[in-house]
Parts: sequence; C-alpha cells; structure tokens
Amino acid sequence: MNTSNYSVKTIEWQGDEVVMIDQRVLPLEEEYIHHTTWQEVGASIKTMVIRGAPAIGVATAMGMALAARQSTATSQDDLKRDLDEAAKGLFATRPTAYNLGWALEQQAKIYNESGDVDKIRVRLKVRSQEILDEDVAMCVAMGEHAAPLFPKGARILTHCNAGALATAGYGTALGVIRSVFKRDPTIHVFADETRPFLQGARLTAWELQQEGIPCTLITDNMSGYFFKKGEIDAVVVGSDRIAGNGDVANKIGTYMVSVLAKEHGVPFYVAAPTSTVDLSLTDGSQIPIEERDPAEVTHCGSRQIAPTGIGVRNPAFDVTPHQNIAAIITEMGVHSEPYTESLAAAKKGK
Amino acid sequence: MNTSNYSVKTIEWQGDEVVMIDQRVLPLEEEYIHHTTWQEVGASIKTMVIRGAPAIGVATAMGMALAARQSTATSQDDLKRDLDEAAKGLFATRPTAYNLGWALEQQAKIYNESGDVDKIRVRLKVRSQEILDEDVAMCVAMGEHAAPLFPKGARILTHCNAGALATAGYGTALGVIRSVFKRDPTIHVFADETRPFLQGARLTAWELQQEGIPCTLITDNMSGYFFKKGEIDAVVVGSDRIAGNGDVANKIGTYMVSVLAKEHGVPFYVAAPTSTVDLSLTDGSQIPIEERDPAEVTHCGSRQIAPTGIGVRNPAFDVTPHQNIAAIITEMGVHSEPYTESLAAAKKGK
Repeated sequence: MNTSNYSVKTIEWQGDEVVMIDQRVLPLEEEYIHHTTWQEVGASIKTMVIRGAPAIGVATAMGMALAARQSTATSQDDLKRDLDEAAKGLFATRPTAYNLGWALEQQAKIYNESGDVDKIRVRLKVRSQEILDEDVAMCVAMGEHAAPLFPKGARILTHCNAGALATAGYGTALGVIRSVFKRDPTIHVFADETRPFLQGARLTAWELQQEGIPCTLITDNMSGYFFKKGEIDAVVVGSDRIAGNGDVANKIGTYMVSVLAKEHGVPFYVAAPTSTVDLSLTDGSQIPIEERDPAEVTHCGSRQIAPTGIGVRNPAFDVTPHQNIAAIITEMGVHSEPYTESLAAAKKGK
Repeated sequence: MNTSNYSVKTIEWQGDEVVMIDQRVLPLEEEYIHHTTWQEVGASIKTMVIRGAPAIGVATAMGMALAARQSTATSQDDLKRDLDEAAKGLFATRPTAYNLGWALEQQAKIYNESGDVDKIRVRLKVRSQEILDEDVAMCVAMGEHAAPLFPKGARILTHCNAGALATAGYGTALGVIRSVFKRDPTIHVFADETRPFLQGARLTAWELQQEGIPCTLITDNMSGYFFKKGEIDAVVVGSDRIAGNGDVANKIGTYMVSVLAKEHGVPFYVAAPTSTVDLSLTDGSQIPIEERDPAEVTHCGSRQIAPTGIGVRNPAFDVTPHQNIAAIITEMGVHSEPYTESLAAAKKGK
C-alpha cells in the first residue's frame, strides 16, 4: 500500500526521524514535529500531538525503533533492558488505547528473539513501517466492506475524528465515509465538534474539506435535533477498544449518540481494525476509562470559559453497549450479533 | 420578598441608580454597571449586559423610573410626553422581548393616571421594584413546589442557564436547585457547558459557585457517561416556550438530555412560570426554531476552532416531547400528564 496516495500525512519516517503533523494546532496551522527519541514520541502521544488508537499504535512502534537507536547496548540483554524501560514509559501515556499495548507486543516479539543487536534495531524500524502500511491497507479494506451498507444519498453522522489523522492514513470511520463518497458523491456528513478537544471541528471538518466531501459541523448537543427531524440516516464512528462481546470504547459522547440512534431507529456502525478487539475483556465494563486534565473542560484552547476553581469531570471515553451497534466493520468484513462469535472469528482471520 | 438573601444580583436599585452585573464578561470578571438614565439602561439591554426576558422586563421598568427622574416636567402632561419618548426608545432595544412591552404597559398605567408628578415618580420606582420582587417570588414558589420531588443527596443535571441571571433573581431551574439545596446540602449538580454560547460554563457554574452549591462542570457530550454509571438522579431545565400539550422548547441539547434520562429511567423536570405556557400552540411542532450565526459554532468566543468555509447548522433551541417529561413546575404547582389539562388549569390560576 503506497500511502503517498493520501493527502493527509499523520506520521512517517523521514530518515531516522519520526515526523508527525501537530494535530493540536490544526486546522489553523499545519506544523510538523520531528522526533529523535522515544521520550519525545511519548510526550507527543501524551499531549495529543498525535491521537487515535491506530495512529498511537504506529507512533509507539516507531518510538520503540527510536529507543533501540538511542540505546548504546552491545548485548541483547542490555538492549532488552533499555527497550523494556522505553515500553513501560510509552505504555503509561494513554491507558485506554489498546493499539498501544498491541504495538509494544509486536516490537517485543522482535527484540525478545535472540539475534544481533544491530539487526534488531533495523527490524524494529522495518516493523514499524509495516504496521503503518498494514494500517492503511486495513482502513481501505474496512471502507470497501462497509460502503454497501449505506443508502444512496446517505446523511451520515460521525463523532470525534476517526480519520486519516487518527490512523496511519485513510481512516476507520472516515475511511468508510471516503469509500462511500467514492461510490456516491451525493452523501452528506454531519460532524460533531467533539468537545473538549474539538477533534470533530478541528480535524474531521478539515479532512472532509480537504477531500471535498460535503460536511456540516454541529455542536455535540445538536445531533438529537437532527435525528428527530429525520435528517440522519446512519452513524459511523471509530473505536479505541472493543471487548469480546462487542462493547465499544470510543471518544466521550459516542454512547450518547448511540442512544439517540437507537431512539430514532438509525443504524449505528463502528469501524475499527481487529487489532482494536481485545478478546481478553468479556465486556466493556473492564475497559479502563482515562480521565484527562480538567483544564480541557474549563478552557477552549487557551481561553478560559468557566470560573476558576469550578469542579470538573473529564472522562475521555465512554462505552457503547453492543446492543446499540448494528454492525462492527473490521478489515475482515462486516460483523454482527452475536459479537462474541463474529469478533472471535475475525480475530482468528476467518 | 427580600432579594438581598441571594448572592447573585442580576439587577437592583442602589439609591437612585440601577445596577446590573455585566453578563458579557462573566465569569472571568465581575463588573457592575451603574445606570442613571433610561438611555444607559436601553444600551445595556441592547448590548446584552442583561439578558433573559424577565430580567429585561425589570430593567425596562427601572429604566422608566429613571426617565421620570430625568424629566424636569412639573405638569403631568409634560411628564407623560417625556415618558412616552423613553418608552419608545426602550421598546426599540429588543422589540421581540415579550416582558419588555409588558413592563412598559405596567408603567404606563401609572403615569397615565392623573396625579402629582412627584408621586408618579415615586410610584414608578416602587412598581419596578415590585416587578422584580414578583418575578423572584414566582421563582421561589417554583422552587418550593419542586423541592420535595428530589431524593436525599440527589445528583441533579441541568442544561444551559435558567438561573438568577436569566430572571430577576433566584432562577427557574436553578431556583429549584437553590430550594433543594436549602433543605439538603448534600446534593450535587452537574452543569452541561452548553455550546455554542457556553451559558452553562460561564453563568450556571458561576452562580452555583457563588452559592456554594457543589457543582461539576461537564461538556455536553458527557452526561450519557454519567447517566450510564447511575450518577445522575434527576434532571431539571428551564424553558423558552411550552405548548399546550406540554412539549417544551428549550436551549439546544435539552431534547438529547431528555432521551438519555428516559433511557436510564431518570425523571426529567421542567421549571418555568405559567407566562411561558403558550396555550395557542397545540404541540411543539408549532414552535419556530431560531437558527443563529454560524460563527458561534466555528468559534469559541473570539477563537476560531474550525476550518474557514466549513458548513454549519446552528439551531438555538429544540423541542422535548411531553412524553419525556416527568413534571412541569410553575409558580402554581407541579403539573403532570395530561398536560393539556394541567397546564390549562395552571394558566387559569387554579
């Protein structure tokens, strides 16, 4: 998969540097940050220079390749010790993102096998690029599987950003929308702005605009109004982690949208690679929910919007129960109830 | 009713000056504007130093009292001429505000009756204070009627600002919360920030903080998470207009909250004076929904948060169907289904 076909470059190797577009300053500025250490990559994950589970997975894999390069170890044991330390540091950045742990496991497989330390360094870098390429290919596959689910001229609501910027490229939920749009240019997208971090207003609206896909930006409290008026035909969102029973963790507010979709008989779809599916969790109650800095809620960017000292909660994710989900689309196909069976089969590559 | 018991002073007489808190700069600045002329009051209504129909009504009545003081007339005819001119000027500030015209009528009754000009001056000032006190008394009555509905230690969600700042004082939905808190200081309030205008973050959070009522500010897409965790026991909101069948128009996002409340078996209450009930409308579909400036959505305050040129919808209100409403509380009592009967009776003063 040649990712140069896609205009949005989320993350890539440039020589021995990991380069990410700074998603915090989009859409008003388009800035790229260069990383030469795993600590810098960790900081960029934590501060949301890069976000979205698949993109975090790629960044983590690349961060481990940088860690191997930083290490002066000449023995495999020393290298393993340094890399385990880096893995621990990277793992602590975003506890809900399943792909982060998955990417660490991918790299651990390489450096836990016996071998020459320099070859291990090379293989870690190669593997990180493979993870990127595989991720784009999976997104395109998801789009192809999902596109037939949408009626002609569909008005599709999405929440947060599950786009090229949330992945290595193309996107999961926005990848589906890209694939639908390729077949039917009469579709229309509603994008929730997605407070507090405004990924919808800043990133999804920007990506859709870049692609020329018709888009209406709304605040998060408006979708109910449009559901009630019959102006939304389908919902598609991404996911940060999916339990074995099909319960889906995704950006805060996703659950609310699923309840509205159910109330109005509108199908609610989730698009995510099988790497997001965590069969070790029997249901969504076991998914840890990260609570982030209260300043994200009391501020809008750098502007304070609430009184100083006010109490705040800031859960970054919520869990949508499988009962509210019409189908989960992975690179393997379109999966429906019972998810315990369909997701397990998808994970096995059936 | 002694309004000095309440810490949030929306508008009041200080000697011969009308003092208003400047709602445009809350919560970061607490500035009070002193008015000695009806023209200054008119400018403050027009520029939204003060907002909310009841509060505007009080400001108008006080502006007329200032106009009488400004007038050097010694005959009633001359005074009437000066006051008619002031009334015309005040009416032009927000010509659609129902309470504005009503307040002018109240004052015209006084100065159109024959009498001593100095006595008229006094009576205009007294009447303006009565209008303020009556509005607060209605809010307090609503609170007293509603308070027994809430369980001990209730965790109450509210949306937008239906507080002291939207009325002459005390508030409708926030008035209910004040009354509940007076009986049970263990309650806790969740305040939706209420994009795009952020009345929840700016005004409700501030009012609750002033009163020492425990409050947690959340973004509009978070309430679903807390409903699901069983952390919300009741919802109370205000209303901009109520149809004869109990359908309630209120700030955008209210409908969404009502659907979540229904999904989780949580009672959803509306607090509003009977003057909000419009029996000429048989149901909520007849309530016109204002769409406001797209810049409110693409910006947060003065800060642009979305790409230039993106499509936007910005409905300011939505309609919550009466089926989702456990009770409507007015100054007359607690009303429930069938609302066609209970609201008609309340309007008749039964």
